[in-house]
Amino acid sequence: MARVLTPRAEDFPRWYQDLIAKAKLADNGPVRGTMVIRPAGYAIWERMQAEMDARIKAAGAENAYFPLFIPESYLKREAEHVEGFSPELAVVTHGGGKQLAEPVVVRPTSETVIGEFMAKWIDSYRDLPLLLNQWANVVRWELRPRIFLRTSEFLWQEGHTAHATREDARAYARRILHEAYEDLMVNVLGIPVVVGLKTARERFAGATATYTCEGMMGDGKALQLGTSHELGQNFAKAFDISYSSAEGGREHAWTTSWGTSTRMLGGLIMAHGDDNGLRVPPRLAPIQAYVMIVKDGEGVAEAAAKLCDGLRDAGVRVALDDRTDTAFGRRAVDAELRGYPVRVEVGPRDLAAGNATVVRRTDGSKSPTPVADVVGAVLAALEADQKALHDQALAHRLSRTVEVATLAEAIEAAANGWARVPWSVVGVAGEAEANGQGVTVRCLLRADGSVPDSEDEPDLVAILARAY
Amino acid sequence: MARVLTPRAEDFPRWYQDLIAKAKLADNGPVRGTMVIRPAGYAIWERMQAEMDARIKAAGAENAYFPLFIPESYLKREAEHVEGFSPELAVVTHGGGKQLAEPVVVRPTSETVIGEFMAKWIDSYRDLPLLLNQWANVVRWELRPRIFLRTSEFLWQEGHTAHATREDARAYARRILHEAYEDLMVNVLGIPVVVGLKTARERFAGATATYTCEGMMGDGKALQLGTSHELGQNFAKAFDISYSSAEGGREHAWTTSWGTSTRMLGGLIMAHGDDNGLRVPPRLAPIQAYVMIVKDGEGVAEAAAKLCDGLRDAGVRVALDDRTDTAFGRRAVDAELRGYPVRVEVGPRDLAAGNATVVRRTDGSKSPTPVADVVGAVLAALEADQKALHDQALAHRLSRTVEVATLAEAIEAAANGWARVPWSVVGVAGEAEANGQGVTVRCLLRADGSVPDSEDEPDLVAILARAY
Repeated sequence: MARVLTPRAEDFPRWYQDLIAKAKLADNGPVRGTMVIRPAGYAIWERMQAEMDARIKAAGAENAYFPLFIPESYLKREAEHVEGFSPELAVVTHGGGKQLAEPVVVRPTSETVIGEFMAKWIDSYRDLPLLLNQWANVVRWELRPRIFLRTSEFLWQEGHTAHATREDARAYARRILHEAYEDLMVNVLGIPVVVGLKTARERFAGATATYTCEGMMGDGKALQLGTSHELGQNFAKAFDISYSSAEGGREHAWTTSWGTSTRMLGGLIMAHGDDNGLRVPPRLAPIQAYVMIVKDGEGVAEAAAKLCDGLRDAGVRVALDDRTDTAFGRRAVDAELRGYPVRVEVGPRDLAAGNATVVRRTDGSKSPTPVADVVGAVLAALEADQKALHDQALAHRLSRTVEVATLAEAIEAAANGWARVPWSVVGVAGEAEANGQGVTVRCLLRADGSVPDSEDEPDLVAILARAY
Repeated sequence: MARVLTPRAEDFPRWYQDLIAKAKLADNGPVRGTMVIRPAGYAIWERMQAEMDARIKAAGAENAYFPLFIPESYLKREAEHVEGFSPELAVVTHGGGKQLAEPVVVRPTSETVIGEFMAKWIDSYRDLPLLLNQWANVVRWELRPRIFLRTSEFLWQEGHTAHATREDARAYARRILHEAYEDLMVNVLGIPVVVGLKTARERFAGATATYTCEGMMGDGKALQLGTSHELGQNFAKAFDISYSSAEGGREHAWTTSWGTSTRMLGGLIMAHGDDNGLRVPPRLAPIQAYVMIVKDGEGVAEAAAKLCDGLRDAGVRVALDDRTDTAFGRRAVDAELRGYPVRVEVGPRDLAAGNATVVRRTDGSKSPTPVADVVGAVLAALEADQKALHDQALAHRLSRTVEVATLAEAIEAAANGWARVPWSVVGVAGEAEANGQGVTVRCLLRADGSVPDSEDEPDLVAILARAY
């Protein structure tokens, strides 16, 4: 097969850009840092949305929609928040042909405006917990944009909840972290993320604790794929989100927020892509089986249509490629680029022998298969390859992660992958030193791998890496 | 039941605002003209989206996403388009702490930016038709905002397609009009829209033909619920969307665009709402059956849970209200306000007689029903009430529509409903005169009710009305 992409080993960032362009996943937008998500990319995002939305709803949150435009004054009410976001804001100064009395910012995130409405809607303890989520676009002006990873506008879900106690808020932030984010990433995206606590330095602007899901990419770097924050009473006090307790007093609520974005598309590409293109895990894939007519011939179209029906009846997401006026080789290269998990190639020669060819994207295997057995073979391949992609990514992560004892070793190891090092030998000073060399503390874990409550717990492990 | 809303007959606009507030559908946002869509309103929007998205995909279009920010220069390339939208634009002048070299506008609609990318993606006739849709927020600065009907930011889908010929473009604009828009509005929303052609004066800025779905609201006014446009070659020429034909020449494409928005929520409220609140047609309703525990008692919770399971198994969308610490009367009023099609009330007294009470929102009827028969009764009610709401709205429209012969009569009739009048007696001059009195030509129809190709066809009927 002709070389279509720059090989990953040669230039990983170039490979990433090539893949996005050639698989027609996205384009750069006309305004610097913005992106156009093309149908092939958007279809994957829609599947991520559907899976995420179901998990968020299962955790009891309801979808709502808050305005794109936020008064500049709102941002200023929480000191750390405004400091964190000010350098990235887009500001609207004119509307309807006139200069605005107060400039409005395009939301970089919605804690402030949602805080304002939570304060209106919450009266008593009976109104708690208030569990909200929204699917929206947000804008953060990016100086070094890269499609899906850092764009000036991106699509995301942002959850915002209010609770009666710190314990309730913590439990919910962690419930979303594990039951929605980790579960989706591991079991649908096939990315074996490490879930941990961010250091104070890496915390969300305005949070008291930030939890994160970190994935290892094909080049050994880390990508933060989703975060969940405890906001303490910071926003509750700034926006007066309070409730009358069962005992009759007036208390400030405890809030959380949590988000995942189109960045997951970048993570998917970099976690599973190979030198031939994307590989989409079957549970995620908008098209799981791609039925291709190799060339026209007696009974070929009928056989392909029948296979599509059979696969569809078995619950498989199917597409038919009957564009026989385009060379088969070119279509096959495109199918590899797009990463459809299974191709079913139907041509006159195979068909004369009663076969179709089942091609698995994960390992490239091609198996002539009796037509009557194709549905079963596809189902088996989809099941096996979901696991295979996850297991390959896990093996990759383990092979590129080293246990070290000193900060110097950790920084050195981060040139090639992740370093696990005692947090006690890094500390705040060591973290600053690592940052100076382009290495960050991705998260902190307990020795047993569980998520700590605070960076002050003893015996924590820090994961250091270069990151996107 | 205590009066909760201003009666419609007393003050229709006030009733509308009351209903939105009391049913917790939406709030005004902090920036003038923006809105917050609350969970009860958003759940209905999600159902509209799901039904619309399925129809759009069935018509072959694929979803994509284009940037929120558009270079100001793009808008200026199509003369009528920029003239139409300039007074409504929000302009971003600062990003990332700096003044921008070229101001960017927040999309009021995306013809221009999508035109730019269609030009890049279309090369030959094989790339046509190109059928795209996006779900997005758009901004049009509103001087007289009203929630759902006219807001500075709203949510919508906008479809954009490119075709090889005028005939193909026309056929597709009409396919969406009928198969997606009219079908959804009539058969899901239960609003018997009239589908017709806009006059030149009412056309979309940059279109050569605009088709519309017009619904009659409870006060006899019209609401435009969706439009589909033929854009001719206007945008294709402005953005150089061209293709090489099978014969080898280079031709400009013919494009269309079409949109429906959160305005449909306003239409739903005003078409079906009554003095007790919203009435949501069963096929649309996020909650079709609302199972309420009247008060605690032996076996009540178990019976309610079992009814929920039975309804869910029968494919009904169910919610359980077991908040017995809130007065039943208050909860019942809320359920009326929200417009759940059927309530199933489960209480100790009824249950002792083996019954639950099935309450239909459409006609207010309350039927004690043996527990074993509840699922069947609910299914029958949902089926019947979908039709009943549509038929009531149709009867209302017919009763408030009059056939008249002159412009003066039409303007007079529009005080109370819709007027059907020969377009030949209105014409361009008559339309301007009607506009001066707050009456607009909603659309033009052929005598047989079908949609004309041009306003120059003979024997057209014009529908004149006051409109939102």
